[in-house]
Amino acid sequence: MPNPTAAMLVIGDEILSGRTRDSNMNHLAKALTAAGIDLKEARVVGDERGTIIAAVQALSKVYDNVFTSGGIGPTHDDITADCIAAAFDRDIDVREDARAMLQAHYDRAGTELNAARLRMARIPDGATLIDNPVSAAPGFTLENVHVMAGVPAVFEAMVASVLPTLTGGDPLISQTLRVERGEGDLAGPLGLVAQRYPLLSLGSYPFQKDGIFGAHLVVRGHDTSMIEAAMADLRAALA
Amino acid sequence: MPNPTAAMLVIGDEILSGRTRDSNMNHLAKALTAAGIDLKEARVVGDERGTIIAAVQALSKVYDNVFTSGGIGPTHDDITADCIAAAFDRDIDVREDARAMLQAHYDRAGTELNAARLRMARIPDGATLIDNPVSAAPGFTLENVHVMAGVPAVFEAMVASVLPTLTGGDPLISQTLRVERGEGDLAGPLGLVAQRYPLLSLGSYPFQKDGIFGAHLVVRGHDTSMIEAAMADLRAALA
Repeated sequence: MPNPTAAMLVIGDEILSGRTRDSNMNHLAKALTAAGIDLKEARVVGDERGTIIAAVQALSKVYDNVFTSGGIGPTHDDITADCIAAAFDRDIDVREDARAMLQAHYDRAGTELNAARLRMARIPDGATLIDNPVSAAPGFTLENVHVMAGVPAVFEAMVASVLPTLTGGDPLISQTLRVERGEGDLAGPLGLVAQRYPLLSLGSYPFQKDGIFGAHLVVRGHDTSMIEAAMADLRAALA
Repeated sequence: MPNPTAAMLVIGDEILSGRTRDSNMNHLAKALTAAGIDLKEARVVGDERGTIIAAVQALSKVYDNVFTSGGIGPTHDDITADCIAAAFDRDIDVREDARAMLQAHYDRAGTELNAARLRMARIPDGATLIDNPVSAAPGFTLENVHVMAGVPAVFEAMVASVLPTLTGGDPLISQTLRVERGEGDLAGPLGLVAQRYPLLSLGSYPFQKDGIFGAHLVVRGHDTSMIEAAMADLRAALA
């Protein structure tokens, strides 16, 4: 059976303006690879209601899982929860269990749970909460969409909360051969080995560092013995 | 007149598996912001012909410019140029001026221009070459799609080659106010100021570092005096 698929949707003007460098995509990619869920696509969109709704609807139809990051804080530009509700035609309002989590968190901190902070307890009807051990305000899962915060520490904690609840597949395994020769010299032999193993993915990633250049040849797949056979073929072809 | 728009398409299995951390998106985002071109969306897709063609067609219809990175090297998994040709229904073959650039480069290095390296001279009919001062193999522009390498040093050199040829708009200007208070306390005043300036974009980006927490409030727009007025209002509202 093929692995479950996933897409990621990064939400935030600050990524598209270059002010903030996204790091959540790489974190999620590694976590999904380890869990045997194939990340097939990632998109970054701005804080625009129509754009977010369209992207959520498009991705959730095509992939088994969609993971979003960003736009669930207390400020006026945090519109993700409302957009997810609209994408699935659900009502959204402050939910009691989410409110209670925030109340307990801010009571401990001696901080007022004001109207802005209460916005973070707005959850679409029918959603399941995603635990946030860092700063209390929960994420949520609605249908196949997992809605998480943009702040990396919180995003990573939420990924850790939600991943064990999902059905994974065979973890993607990879082995790497480092070769100090130009990619143009490796391409021919690499292509021939790739043809021999249609169930594996063979990639070449050039590097150049401290005057040494070459490529990392990466063999990816789900069958360790097949990967080892391909690696042996590669070594022989390049000897 | 509104600024020209752009999308980015990052191509490569290695980004989606988490093996490689993309840095080209942030570089392009900053360069476009400075040039007055609004980056509206970015997508990451794998090395799959159908997926790449569909993404190029979708993005090139909606945005004024599309920038791709990745998949134009000498190996079998470098299929971007062929996909771009297919997306616009053009033929593709080795082009003499591109071949000459490669020949000169490899002659200088004493390296053979073999069949694999010659693939990098395959250019779709009607494209304009993008200069690559780093490693000779050119990128190209076809219609409104600018096709560039994935290796960051080469990508950045190609961005520098292509940006001056494009029509820009007013650079996006931003000013930032650092406030050491919780976002939940800032959200109310920030929202009120945002309503007063519909032509500006006001965002809040929380931070937590060395025990100090707060938010960077960022005002973005094209009119410096309007931005300064909004910053003054923000300071007054938070005093």
